[in-house]
Amino acid sequence: MRIGIAGYGNLGRGVECAIKQNPDMELVGVFTRRNPGDVTLLTQGVKVYSISEAVNMKDQIDVMIICGGSATDLPQMTPELAKTFNVIDSFDNHSAIPQHFENVDKVAREGGNLALISVGWDPGMFSLNRVLANAILPKGNDYTFWGKGVSQGHSNAIRRIQGVKDAKQYTIPIEVALESVRNGQNPTLASGEKHKRECFVVAEEGADLKRIESEIVNMPAYFADYDTTVRFISQEELHKEHAGIPHGGNVIRTGKTGWNEENNHVIEYVLKLDSNPEFTSSVLVAYARAAYRMKNRGITGCKTVFDVAPVDLSAFSPEELRAHML
Amino acid sequence: MRIGIAGYGNLGRGVECAIKQNPDMELVGVFTRRNPGDVTLLTQGVKVYSISEAVNMKDQIDVMIICGGSATDLPQMTPELAKTFNVIDSFDNHSAIPQHFENVDKVAREGGNLALISVGWDPGMFSLNRVLANAILPKGNDYTFWGKGVSQGHSNAIRRIQGVKDAKQYTIPIEVALESVRNGQNPTLASGEKHKRECFVVAEEGADLKRIESEIVNMPAYFADYDTTVRFISQEELHKEHAGIPHGGNVIRTGKTGWNEENNHVIEYVLKLDSNPEFTSSVLVAYARAAYRMKNRGITGCKTVFDVAPVDLSAFSPEELRAHML
Repeated sequence: MRIGIAGYGNLGRGVECAIKQNPDMELVGVFTRRNPGDVTLLTQGVKVYSISEAVNMKDQIDVMIICGGSATDLPQMTPELAKTFNVIDSFDNHSAIPQHFENVDKVAREGGNLALISVGWDPGMFSLNRVLANAILPKGNDYTFWGKGVSQGHSNAIRRIQGVKDAKQYTIPIEVALESVRNGQNPTLASGEKHKRECFVVAEEGADLKRIESEIVNMPAYFADYDTTVRFISQEELHKEHAGIPHGGNVIRTGKTGWNEENNHVIEYVLKLDSNPEFTSSVLVAYARAAYRMKNRGITGCKTVFDVAPVDLSAFSPEELRAHML
Repeated sequence: MRIGIAGYGNLGRGVECAIKQNPDMELVGVFTRRNPGDVTLLTQGVKVYSISEAVNMKDQIDVMIICGGSATDLPQMTPELAKTFNVIDSFDNHSAIPQHFENVDKVAREGGNLALISVGWDPGMFSLNRVLANAILPKGNDYTFWGKGVSQGHSNAIRRIQGVKDAKQYTIPIEVALESVRNGQNPTLASGEKHKRECFVVAEEGADLKRIESEIVNMPAYFADYDTTVRFISQEELHKEHAGIPHGGNVIRTGKTGWNEENNHVIEYVLKLDSNPEFTSSVLVAYARAAYRMKNRGITGCKTVFDVAPVDLSAFSPEELRAHML
C-alpha cells in the first residue's frame, strides 16, 4: 500500500523508519508546511512536497499518516486531509476526542474516506487493553501508570522558569503503589501516590538555584502534588545522558470472578519504550494497513482502535496467523 | 442476549458465573451428556437439558458456549452444534487448530451460523497479544512464559505412576530467564531454561518414594528436561493447600525501531489468575457478546479472536468507550 506522511518531525521520521520495516508498504511522499527544499528525508528517491500539493495526489496515496501535534495541528489537519484521503492520526488530547471524532467523521463520510484517530499507545494500545480487560472482567478496577519516561509538557513547564536554560522531566511510577495494585489490594491512589517526578535542570550562569528548585517543586498541577526531585546538571550532561525520549507504562485491571466473587485476577499490559515517537509511529503504520483493508471493504467515516480487528493489522494472512500465532 | 451452555464442568460453571456479571446476558439452559436430573446449577430457575434436546431450542438461544475438553469433546461437539447454533469454544490443541477451523467453518457456513473457536487466554488473549505486538514491531522476538500455574497434563502424568495416590504439578517461569527477555537480551532459551516444575505428590502407604521421585524427574518430555522438585505431602495437605487451579503467564515481544534499528522496545502482557477455568469462561462470555453482534451484521462461518473488533466485546456503547476508555 502507498503511504503519505503529513508533517515531518520526530513522529513523521518514525513513520518513515517503520515503513522501511514493512515490505508491503511504500512511502510515496512527505508533505510539509515548511519549505520542501529545507526538508531532507532518510529514504532515497522519495520527494518532499508542500502540504498544499497533497490534494493533487489523491490517486497516488492509499493512506495519509498525519504526524502533527494534538494541541493545534491535528484538530485542523485531520478533518482537512480526511476530505481527500484515508487518514490516521495520533490525537492524544483525551477529553477532546469525542469532538475530534465528530469533526473527522463528518468530512470522512462526505469524502467517502476512512479515518482512524487517536492511534498510538495512549490513546491507542493502552485504550485497547482497557477495553479488553473491562470486557473480560466486568467486576474490577482499572489502573494506569506512566513511565519511566520523559514528559514533554512537564519539561516545557520547567524551561519557562526564569533562569532555566534547559530541562528534562521524568515521570516515574511509584513501585510500592504498582505492587499494591498487582497484589489485588485495589488501593485508592492520589496522583502523587502513583507517580514521582525527577527533573534534570540546566541553569543559566549565576541563576538562583534555590529559587528555581522552589518554583519547580511548588508549581501547581505540574509538581506540587508529587514527590519531586530536582538535580542541576550541565548542558553537556543533559545532552549526553538525557537525549533520549523513552517512555512506557502499565495498564492494569484487577477483577473478581466466581459465584461469590471469590477468585482474583490481574491483567497487566506493560510497555518499555526507548523512543516514544518511534513506537507511536510503529503503531500508526500497523493501523495504516488496517485502514487500507477496511476502506477496501467499503468502510468509511471515523474509526478508532476499538473498531479494528487484529487480523487487519498483520502482514500475515489469516491462515498463517491461525497456524502460527493462535 | 440468550446464552446456552453445552457441558457443565469447571468451565461450564465458570461461564454460568460470568453470565451473572453481565446484565445484558441471560442463561437460557444448560445442556449435558449426563442425566439432566443429576446436574444441579447455581442459577435459580434455569433448566438442565439433555444435549440431544438442544436442536429443538434453536430459536431460544442466540449463542451456545461449548464447554468441553479439547482432546475428544470439542472436535465432535463444535461442528455438531454449529449446524444449529452460533457457537463458541475454547479449543486449545494449538497444532490441530487449522483442521478444527476447517471442520467448523464448513458446517457453520452451511447452517448460516457464526462460530468462534479457540477463545480463552492461550489460545485467546495470549494469541491476540502476539498478533498485536508482531504487527507493531515487525523486527523482534517473541517469548511466552506460563505460570505459576497448575498443569493438568503434568499432574495426570504423575498420577499414572505406580504408588501415587494424587498429585499436583506447578509450572513456574524461571525468573532470571524472564528478566533477561525483559532486558532485551533476546536469549535463545531451551524449554528447561524457561520453566521449572514443582510437584506435590501423595504416595500410597508403603510406596517406594525414591522410585516415584526418580520416575517423575526422569519422565521424558514431561519432566526430564526441566529442573523438577518433588515434595511428598499428605492427602489432607494437598486438599488444603493445593485445591485451587491458578495459572497465568507472560507474552513478551522485544523489538527494534529506528533507521538503523537503534531503539529497543518491550511489549509485555501478563496474566495472574486465581482460577484458570473461570478466567477462560469470562473470556468466552465476552466473545459471546461479539459473536451475537457479528452474526446480527450477517457474518457467518468460523472466526477466531483475530477477527473480532474490541468494540464488539464491550457492554458499553462506542460513544461511551471513546469518551471514557480511549
